Amino acid sequence: MTTSRRDTAIAALEVDSTMRESFPASRKIYVQGSRPDIRVPMREIALSPTVSSAGEQANPPLHLYDTTGPYTDPDVDIDLAAGLPRLREAWIEERGDTEFLTAPTSRYANERAADIALGELRFPNRRTPRRAKPGKCVTQMHYARQGIVTPEMEFIAIRENQNRQLLRDAGLLAQQHPGHSFGAAIPAEITPEFVRDEVARGRAIIPANINHPELEPMIIGRNFLVKVNANIGNSAITSSIAEEVEKMIWATRWGADTIMDLSTGANIHETREWILRNSAAPIGTVPIYQALEKVNGKPEDLTWELFRDTLIEQAEQGVDYFTIHAGVLLRYIPLTANRMTGIVSRGGSIMAKWCLAHHKENFLYTHWDDICEIMAAYDISFSIGDGLRPGSIADANDEPQYGELRTQGELTRRAWEFGVQVMNEGPGHVPMHMIKDNMDKQLEWCGEAPFYTLGPLTTDVAPGYDHITSAIGAAMIGWFGTAMLCYVTPKEHLGLPDKNDVKEGMIAYKIAAHAADLAKGHPGAQAWDNAMSKARFEFRWQDQFNLALDPGRAREFHDETLPAEGAKVAHFCSMCGPKFCSMKITQDIRDYAQEHGYSVDKALEAGMAEMSEKFVETGSALYQKE
Amino acid sequence: MTTSRRDTAIAALEVDSTMRESFPASRKIYVQGSRPDIRVPMREIALSPTVSSAGEQANPPLHLYDTTGPYTDPDVDIDLAAGLPRLREAWIEERGDTEFLTAPTSRYANERAADIALGELRFPNRRTPRRAKPGKCVTQMHYARQGIVTPEMEFIAIRENQNRQLLRDAGLLAQQHPGHSFGAAIPAEITPEFVRDEVARGRAIIPANINHPELEPMIIGRNFLVKVNANIGNSAITSSIAEEVEKMIWATRWGADTIMDLSTGANIHETREWILRNSAAPIGTVPIYQALEKVNGKPEDLTWELFRDTLIEQAEQGVDYFTIHAGVLLRYIPLTANRMTGIVSRGGSIMAKWCLAHHKENFLYTHWDDICEIMAAYDISFSIGDGLRPGSIADANDEPQYGELRTQGELTRRAWEFGVQVMNEGPGHVPMHMIKDNMDKQLEWCGEAPFYTLGPLTTDVAPGYDHITSAIGAAMIGWFGTAMLCYVTPKEHLGLPDKNDVKEGMIAYKIAAHAADLAKGHPGAQAWDNAMSKARFEFRWQDQFNLALDPGRAREFHDETLPAEGAKVAHFCSMCGPKFCSMKITQDIRDYAQEHGYSVDKALEAGMAEMSEKFVETGSALYQKE
Repeated sequence: MTTSRRDTAIAALEVDSTMRESFPASRKIYVQGSRPDIRVPMREIALSPTVSSAGEQANPPLHLYDTTGPYTDPDVDIDLAAGLPRLREAWIEERGDTEFLTAPTSRYANERAADIALGELRFPNRRTPRRAKPGKCVTQMHYARQGIVTPEMEFIAIRENQNRQLLRDAGLLAQQHPGHSFGAAIPAEITPEFVRDEVARGRAIIPANINHPELEPMIIGRNFLVKVNANIGNSAITSSIAEEVEKMIWATRWGADTIMDLSTGANIHETREWILRNSAAPIGTVPIYQALEKVNGKPEDLTWELFRDTLIEQAEQGVDYFTIHAGVLLRYIPLTANRMTGIVSRGGSIMAKWCLAHHKENFLYTHWDDICEIMAAYDISFSIGDGLRPGSIADANDEPQYGELRTQGELTRRAWEFGVQVMNEGPGHVPMHMIKDNMDKQLEWCGEAPFYTLGPLTTDVAPGYDHITSAIGAAMIGWFGTAMLCYVTPKEHLGLPDKNDVKEGMIAYKIAAHAADLAKGHPGAQAWDNAMSKARFEFRWQDQFNLALDPGRAREFHDETLPAEGAKVAHFCSMCGPKFCSMKITQDIRDYAQEHGYSVDKALEAGMAEMSEKFVETGSALYQKE
Repeated sequence: MTTSRRDTAIAALEVDSTMRESFPASRKIYVQGSRPDIRVPMREIALSPTVSSAGEQANPPLHLYDTTGPYTDPDVDIDLAAGLPRLREAWIEERGDTEFLTAPTSRYANERAADIALGELRFPNRRTPRRAKPGKCVTQMHYARQGIVTPEMEFIAIRENQNRQLLRDAGLLAQQHPGHSFGAAIPAEITPEFVRDEVARGRAIIPANINHPELEPMIIGRNFLVKVNANIGNSAITSSIAEEVEKMIWATRWGADTIMDLSTGANIHETREWILRNSAAPIGTVPIYQALEKVNGKPEDLTWELFRDTLIEQAEQGVDYFTIHAGVLLRYIPLTANRMTGIVSRGGSIMAKWCLAHHKENFLYTHWDDICEIMAAYDISFSIGDGLRPGSIADANDEPQYGELRTQGELTRRAWEFGVQVMNEGPGHVPMHMIKDNMDKQLEWCGEAPFYTLGPLTTDVAPGYDHITSAIGAAMIGWFGTAMLCYVTPKEHLGLPDKNDVKEGMIAYKIAAHAADLAKGHPGAQAWDNAMSKARFEFRWQDQFNLALDPGRAREFHDETLPAEGAKVAHFCSMCGPKFCSMKITQDIRDYAQEHGYSVDKALEAGMAEMSEKFVETGSALYQKE
């Protein structure tokens, strides 16, 4: 089996050409920053003109935040065995606070490197790792506190800001709903200084390990666009390296802002290297999973030394954030005994098992300061795990969950003392009426560090559709202030996601994140909806497909009913047919409004309400004459 | 084409055997009411016992609200050409306030009956219609106001109440989250008297035309379970009678509480007859659609006389509720000229076109009292249309929309004067932060009449996934107090739903409705989640599949990763593999808790918080000794 897996891995490690295609009518553009090597990628969607009796009127292109990385740039040669271009290398080098090591410093990494049996599985283009010079803190938070605006921060400001500029250019900013942001403070324009400020105060993080120079910087914080994470990873039962690399590229193609590699099966080290070297998105892991593999799945055999070596191993590969379940304290564990579903987090239950076996406090908690020192030396961000999150509606917001959340807050503040960036993980399974309390308590107890939630699922009864049960909760908690949403695929509770599940999960979560951005009144979010709605109203079918979150499916669904090419320029759709069309009638209304003195300008001038009253009088008079 | 369509219709008018199958481990049971002919159907799901070291412990079966009608009762002979059993016939007859007509009184219905060319399309087992005796009001609202508890009301009380009884029997009622219901007043137990009271004050409706005796009574109101409507119907372009009947049965199989037949194509009259005679769910229509067909799609040719004849035609067939766009007033129409997407409701735009063509007030508004008299004579409920609902995020909650909503309130009160039952239709496309305002205004302006919304969609950018964009909004507005949710299928904006789209739309909306019930703290809602979560935690895989909203998909997804039958009794799943399992660890925790004096009973006695504190001390002491 190992042999056939290797063959599969090697044979398939090429990027499927469909992963390199641009989306229809789309091209990759770059916005230039203050220096030549700050080039921020965006996806430009060209739109066709509006055709009316008054002639043609151009529609400005739309620019969308682009997570697809260099894969959708036809000018970039992709060679998975070489890895992506190292965008950040010069930035890191210039700071002069890091040094190259002669070799990895993790015992395990060196063992794997020396194992000739792994030759065929190994990423060929390895480099020696980089680490902070002794005594240096190399985190973005540290720089931010020093008042330094890094190239990463400028990159992010441009990236987060793009829709706003577009709107201003097109005069569309005024059409936006103002939103309701529950105390978030989203500025009219994102400046590099604003990014710096948010990172300095811990309200946003830039996950960017100095050993992951291929990364296109992004930010996680509630005053920025809501982000989505996609989980991938093999297990003892399924999947090869090639499949995992493919899932990573595939997930970012559909909008994943970060990727978590949750592998628990064979060759975790090598799989991770292939993923990192080919990912423009930050990669997160749960190091305890690999540590557990190293002790053959026996939690009681875990030690701090082994875990530490695993942290270093992954740090030197370039992992951008670590989920660490340091909040699972011994005293909380018995509180889960009466739960409907006990402890459902893998990391949480590993640590619970360890604590019970040794009757000692969680070693991740007792070694927190040691861990912080490692994180600071590579700029790895914490994603403080919620190992006691509820696994069912019945267990939502209970004592063990909230006990751990308070401890997450304590750990957050201690990490900040080390200059380490932090976000906090959150649930899970929560009915709608109990969601907001999670957000409120996290903000209060964790000092406004970014919240990163798994859903939450709003009911337990729909396995096979948990991308939907959880998209409901995710949209809501995103609106309330959660900075990143961890996707849930339709396979949740049933199996590991395949490529199609990854896409279904991503789409559901891009919907949730975008719905949250709209509700928060994030400037620029609504421009996309408006472009779509205008295209819909004007029967620009091709533009509707091209603007869709999933252009292929939109076109396919349309064509099931009306496959002819002619139907794509038709001024009707399959819902009403050609004889009668509600949208056509609106043109009559516009003509009528104009004839009767309700021209667009006039109505705006006079104020809608007043015009309405005037119309009542006229209308009533006419009616009474009848 | 007509010929081939007929052939299809006749040939296919048999119920697919898959539609008659029970769901796995499920059987139809009936709960007996106060008289022999009140037998309330439920779906009983048998569960396997919990196996532990302490031996086997039985799990009580779960009873779910059952919308599938007689199709899932193996003891009922189904003959589509005969129609379903007439459950309510005796109840209607006993009231003595109706009479059989010698023939339909609609001119159009008589023309269709006389057309021999339609012979093959016609439902063969026609009956003469029933109508209120002169001067009688035969609505459930009228009876309720007289203090009469009808058999329909008792049937509904049992139907809405069943989960509560089950919970009480199993001692599980205390496990429920109390919910937050925004002023709804859901009683601990639904009594027939409570049903009567809610109907009398207009806060709930029982759509039940006296000419639809096949109907199993159900209620729509915010103090009851949230309901879901499924739209079906042919258009000029697609679908036959057989397909529409099949979609109706299929939609109710997946939980549709009511069905709207929105046909706009050929043979609307005959299609509707087949649907009504075979539907145990209330059927709603938009009569203006058929009226428009009768004037060849020219709104300006519509007249009150023609519309009135259409109402009578459909009333005498047995339609249970009519969507009527009487709130689209002439004065509101020009206010839509500046909208991003004008008027997107078909009914709304038909009436707008008529108003503009004649420069007169909407004839549905001016003839409201006449319409009310018809509704009262057959007990048809109003679903007052929202013809000016927003068709895009940009247009949400604007003046024309809210203007019409105020008029819906005025029309509601006028209908109540006639004893006619009313619900109000709502949007549409609304970003999350603007959803609650819709609910609040509807409650205030429409006197708490039930709200019935289409989604709302929370973003415009995901055609192909609008079942998800709208399930988010539907779950939220359901929680806020909307009584019935109109489903949206993945084909929304792109084409007409096929059978699979109907199912996908239904599942998404059952999720939304159930999530809303949970959040409102509807007693009984959480029992289902708890049964699922307990089965999940105990690795009762078969029970998990059987309890799922879609058992087939849950099993299929599980089997993609672990197809062997053995895996369905395995104490692990594909997420973690056999070596390590988070759920297994919980048993260790329970053992530990017991050993260290944290037995379930003791913890409950002492109070969790106190035990927690005690544990801190012990835990800390141990840790300090290290």
